Amino acid sequence: MATVHMVEYDAASDEVRAVYDDIMQHKNITFVPNIWKAFGNHPALLKDVWFSLKETMKPGALDEKTKEMIAVAVSMTNGCEYCTHSHVAAARKAGMTEEMYGELLAVASIFNRTNALANAYQIPVDDGILAAAPGPAK
Amino acid sequence: MATVHMVEYDAASDEVRAVYDDIMQHKNITFVPNIWKAFGNHPALLKDVWFSLKETMKPGALDEKTKEMIAVAVSMTNGCEYCTHSHVAAARKAGMTEEMYGELLAVASIFNRTNALANAYQIPVDDGILAAAPGPAK
Amino acid sequence: MATVHMVEYDAASDEVRAVYDDIMQHKNITFVPNIWKAFGNHPALLKDVWFSLKETMKPGALDEKTKEMIAVAVSMTNGCEYCTHSHVAAARKAGMTEEMYGELLAVASIFNRTNALANAYQIPVDDGILAAAPGPAK
Amino acid sequence: MATVHMVEYDAASDEVRAVYDDIMQHKNITFVPNIWKAFGNHPALLKDVWFSLKETMKPGALDEKTKEMIAVAVSMTNGCEYCTHSHVAAARKAGMTEEMYGELLAVASIFNRTNALANAYQIPVDDGILAAAPGPAK
Amino acid sequence: MATVHMVEYDAASDEVRAVYDDIMQHKNITFVPNIWKAFGNHPALLKDVWFSLKETMKPGALDEKTKEMIAVAVSMTNGCEYCTHSHVAAARKAGMTEEMYGELLAVASIFNRTNALANAYQIPVDDGILAAAPGPAK
Amino acid sequence: MATVHMVEYDAASDEVRAVYDDIMQHKNITFVPNIWKAFGNHPALLKDVWFSLKETMKPGALDEKTKEMIAVAVSMTNGCEYCTHSHVAAARKAGMTEEMYGELLAVASIFNRTNALANAYQIPVDDGILAAAPGPAK
Repeated sequence: MATVHMVEYDAASDEVRAVYDDIMQHKNITFVPNIWKAFGNHPALLKDVWFSLKETMKPGALDEKTKEMIAVAVSMTNGCEYCTHSHVAAARKAGMTEEMYGELLAVASIFNRTNALANAYQIPVDDGILAAAPGPAK
Repeated sequence: MATVHMVEYDAASDEVRAVYDDIMQHKNITFVPNIWKAFGNHPALLKDVWFSLKETMKPGALDEKTKEMIAVAVSMTNGCEYCTHSHVAAARKAGMTEEMYGELLAVASIFNRTNALANAYQIPVDDGILAAAPGPAK
Repeated sequence: MATVHMVEYDAASDEVRAVYDDIMQHKNITFVPNIWKAFGNHPALLKDVWFSLKETMKPGALDEKTKEMIAVAVSMTNGCEYCTHSHVAAARKAGMTEEMYGELLAVASIFNRTNALANAYQIPVDDGILAAAPGPAK
Repeated sequence: MATVHMVEYDAASDEVRAVYDDIMQHKNITFVPNIWKAFGNHPALLKDVWFSLKETMKPGALDEKTKEMIAVAVSMTNGCEYCTHSHVAAARKAGMTEEMYGELLAVASIFNRTNALANAYQIPVDDGILAAAPGPAK
Repeated sequence: MATVHMVEYDAASDEVRAVYDDIMQHKNITFVPNIWKAFGNHPALLKDVWFSLKETMKPGALDEKTKEMIAVAVSMTNGCEYCTHSHVAAARKAGMTEEMYGELLAVASIFNRTNALANAYQIPVDDGILAAAPGPAK
Repeated sequence: MATVHMVEYDAASDEVRAVYDDIMQHKNITFVPNIWKAFGNHPALLKDVWFSLKETMKPGALDEKTKEMIAVAVSMTNGCEYCTHSHVAAARKAGMTEEMYGELLAVASIFNRTNALANAYQIPVDDGILAAAPGPAK
C-alpha cells in the first residue's frame, strides 16, 4: 500500500493530465504507471521529475538500452523494488537479452562487492589513476 | 592511509605474485594497483576476487566499455572514492567519451532520485509491469 | 513475515510491559506498534532504543513535525518500508500537510541525486565552504 | 582530486556562464562552487540539475532552513563528504543554530539505527498505520 | 514476484543441476532455495557466485555462526529482505541463540547510527588510530 | 576538516568532561578520540550515544572481538572512513588476527554482492525459510 492515494487519470487536474498524456505518448504505453499516479498528488514534483527524466533518457551518446541497464544497476544497488521491476521491464523492451541481463547482474553485483572491500581497506587512489583521471582537455 | 600495509610485488609470496602477474597482463598495465596490493595480505580473498572479476569482465553480450560504465554507476551510488576513480579511468580507456560520461552521470543520478521517491511513496508494482517481467521463455 | 514472533502485551514480562505502557502513553496511542512488539524479544535492546528515541524526539530547538519529516527523509533514502509508512503517518499527525509532504519528497530526492553526482565527480570541498564550516564559537 | 577538470568561469562557454551567473545571483555568493564547475563539462546536465534544484529549493510550504536540514540528513545518510559540508554551511547561513544542528544529528542518526532494526526484524506495517496512511482527501 | 522465472531442478540443464546438487549437499538441505533457482537462468553467474560463496563460507579462522551473523549485519544494513530472512535462519541453524541475535541487532544498528554521525561531522581519523592501523607485520 | 570545532578536554564543561573521563576509562585509552570531541558540541547527543554504546558493547552472549568485527562489516558496507579505521583498530586490539580480518572482509563483501543480486531478481523468500524463521518459542 502506498503512502498516498493514486491520482487516476480521470480524477486528475488538467495540469496533471497533460503530463500523464505526455508520459504515455513518450513511453508508447496506454496506462499511467503507478509512480506517476503517486506524483499526481504533487504537481510541481511531477513536472520537475518528468521533464528531467524525459531529457535524461532521450537517446544521445548512449542508447536507450544502455541507459535502462544503468537504471537497473542503480536500482538493485539501492534495493528499490518498484524501480528494479520497472527498469528491468524497460530494458527488455529496449532490447536487453537474457544473456545481457545475466552479465549486467554479474557486473553490477561484483562491484558492490569490491566497493565494500575498497572501503574496508581504505585504499588510497593510485597516482597513476589520478594522473590519468581529470578528463576533458581544455 | 589504508588499514593494511600494501604487499609490494617484490615482497609477495610466489602465490600472490602469480596473481599480480596475471592482473598486470590481463589489464595491460605495468604496475599493481593499490587495491590488489591490499588484497596481497589475504591470498585466498585475492584469488577469489580476481578470478571472479576476470570471468565477469571479459567481453561477452556486453562490451568492456558498457561494463565499466555500469561499474561507475554502482560506485557513485555507493560513494566509493577509490572505485569511482578507478572505473572512470578504465571506462575512458575502453572508449567512454566525455559526452558518454555526462550521460552516464545524468542517468545514474536521476535514478538515485527516483529510487528514493518510489521508496517514499511505497508504490506497488504495476500489474502490467509484473505481467511482462518474468523473463526467459521456458 | 517477521524474523521473530511479536511479543504481545499480555504475554510480555513486567519489564517489557512497562516499556510498552510508556510508549503508548508517550505517543498517545492505544496499541503497541509491531516494531516494539518485535523488540519485546530483546528487552535490553527495547529499553536502549526506546529511551534513546524518547529523549531524541522530544520537542526542543526543532519541533516534532520537523523531526518526523527528517525521519521520512532518512527512511526513504535507506529504502525502509516499515519506517517510511510509520514516519509519514507520524509526520502527518504532527501537522505535515500534503504540500509539505510534496516539498519534503522533492528536496530529499534531489539530494539523493546530487549526492551521487558529487561522489561521481569526487569534487573537493570548496575552500570557502571549509573556512565557514567549523561551527560553534569558542 | 576530481574525475574532471573544473570549468572555470572565464573558460566557460556563454551557455555555461549564464548558468554560473544565475547560480551566484540566486545563492547570493561571489564564486562558483566546485560542484557547478564540474558540471560545466556537461552543459545539459548542468542545466537539468540547476533548474530542478532552483525550483525545489525555493521557499514554499517549507522554509529554506528546513530544506537545507533535510539535505544534511540525506547527505550524512549517504556519506557524501562534499554534500555534507556544503549543506551544513547552507543550513547555518539560513539560520540553523548549533542547538538545531545537534538535534538534527540526533534525529537523523537514530533513524539510521531504527531503519536497520526494522529491516532486520522484517516487521509488517501495522494495520493501524496503513489505514491512516494514504494521504490527500479526494 | 521475481524478475525471472525460477529454473526448477527438473527443468535445469545438466550444468545447472550439478551446481544445484552441490548446493543441497553442501548446505545439507533437500530443496533448492529460490535465489539459486533464479541464478539458474544465468549459468555463468550461478557458478561464479556459488564457488565464491562455498570458498568464503567454509569454516576457517571464523566459524560458520560468526560468518552468518556478519551476513545478517550486512543484509540489515542494505535492507535486503530475502537475504535477511535467509541469513537469520542460517545463523540460527549454526547455533545463534536469541540472546546472541538480540546483541547482534543492537551492535549492527548502533553502528548504523554512529556511521551516520561520523559522516555528518566529517571527523578526521585520529593520529593514534592511524598509527596503530596498518596491519600485518612485514 | 570537520563541520564543527573539536571540544578539547580542557575546554569542556564539567558535564562533557565527565563523559570524556568515562570513555577513556572504559576504553582504557589516554586520549579522547575525535568523534567524541565532536559530540562535545552537543552534550545531549554525546550522552545519548555514549551510554547506548557502552551498554551495547559490553561483553554478553557475544564477545568484544565479535562485536567489533560486526562494526567493521557495517562500516565498510556504509563506506564510513572514520568508522572503518576506528573499528578495525578496536577489533585488532580485541584479538582479531589478520587471518580473521581477511575472512571478515571476504564474508562481508560477498554478501554485499548477493544482496544486490537478490534485490535485482526480487526473489520471494522460500516457504521453508519463512516457516523456520520466527524465532523465540513462546
